Amino acid sequence: MSIAIIGGTGPQGRGLALRFAKKGFNVLIGSRDKSNAMKTSEELNTVLGANFGKITGHSNTEVAEKTVDFVIIAVPWSGHNKIISDLADVLRGKLIIDIVVPLAEGNPRKVDMPPEGSATESAQEILGHDTPVIGALHNVSASTLNKLDTKINCDVLVCGNNLEARTKVIDLLSKLDLNAYNAGDAEAARCIEAITPILIRINMSKKVPFSHAGIQIWPPEH
Amino acid sequence: MSIAIIGGTGPQGRGLALRFAKKGFNVLIGSRDKSNAMKTSEELNTVLGANFGKITGHSNTEVAEKTVDFVIIAVPWSGHNKIISDLADVLRGKLIIDIVVPLAEGNPRKVDMPPEGSATESAQEILGHDTPVIGALHNVSASTLNKLDTKINCDVLVCGNNLEARTKVIDLLSKLDLNAYNAGDAEAARCIEAITPILIRINMSKKVPFSHAGIQIWPPEH
Repeated sequence: MSIAIIGGTGPQGRGLALRFAKKGFNVLIGSRDKSNAMKTSEELNTVLGANFGKITGHSNTEVAEKTVDFVIIAVPWSGHNKIISDLADVLRGKLIIDIVVPLAEGNPRKVDMPPEGSATESAQEILGHDTPVIGALHNVSASTLNKLDTKINCDVLVCGNNLEARTKVIDLLSKLDLNAYNAGDAEAARCIEAITPILIRINMSKKVPFSHAGIQIWPPEH
Repeated sequence: MSIAIIGGTGPQGRGLALRFAKKGFNVLIGSRDKSNAMKTSEELNTVLGANFGKITGHSNTEVAEKTVDFVIIAVPWSGHNKIISDLADVLRGKLIIDIVVPLAEGNPRKVDMPPEGSATESAQEILGHDTPVIGALHNVSASTLNKLDTKINCDVLVCGNNLEARTKVIDLLSKLDLNAYNAGDAEAARCIEAITPILIRINMSKKVPFSHAGIQIWPPEH
């Protein structure tokens, strides 16, 4: 199985690349700057060692053009709509996982939602309804993702208008030992994306601020 | 300490009345139908037995007029704005805790948010900015609240525009052995209220559907 990550050199993208490659996936990380993606992929392969999936570095356009099972959008919110618009022709028909949270400029304890309602809904509108966009992984902290020996302390709420695609993403995430839940259609992203700044607020409120608060559904799945 | 619950005969109101009275609070439950509130309060006092706070039954107007430490709004969403408007004069200046979730008519797995953004923001707009409205307790299931011997399996995200009032509510909820978190201003209710239909969806998705899914912040406070 193969996964492309657009914006794969950021903290979220790096952590996901490591987690998926560790489970045997081939991961293609993309960046605006191809040489940066190539350097990052070398670093990550070194972290992992042999006997795992391969991580390779490319431009964002290159990874969007490849035939892969899933395309993850992990770019900063400020570039989200433009990058998706620019790549729309090559992304069409692929299964897109949008993990982006519209954090307010200068205040990560708040969201600043777009007129479409959420990042996931924006992406869905740009790509059109034949391309399934699934919102997921918004609430998992990058710091936890990058600590490969740590079990991820955050469940994942998965939403999107295409139920078959939602189910595929839930199955995919179970391979990372995550509890992933069907949270309904894309509109639920208005809630799910906005959980992240609440977790950031909790992180920042501690006497010793940390960066790894998560949410869990109770009772747990397993 | 005393707490008034407007809409106190519903499942949420009953459970909260029991939980607070068990901790020694005097609880005034209100209903459109005073005789129903009186009958409910008798039932609840019988469940509790002696040596706890007293639960008394009144009309919604009567409980809104009393001098109490907190007023909880626990009415169905369909009546939320009208009841608050009708009682606005007597509620003014009190500390209001709004627990109402705008579930979509006929589909509890979705929200149908009002133009103000959330129930908490609607209440705040109706009551004006001198009356602090705090959103809280949206995600705690009524069935769990009513099982008095069960520890509540759900953390509480607390939001509102008045920080002092938010802090008072967080302190209040800690008396129910709840982990309550400062989630920011009233706008955060757009997210927090919308978590409830996601939990309802999870409840309904089980082979044996249940009614008690909750969310927890990880790492736990205690």
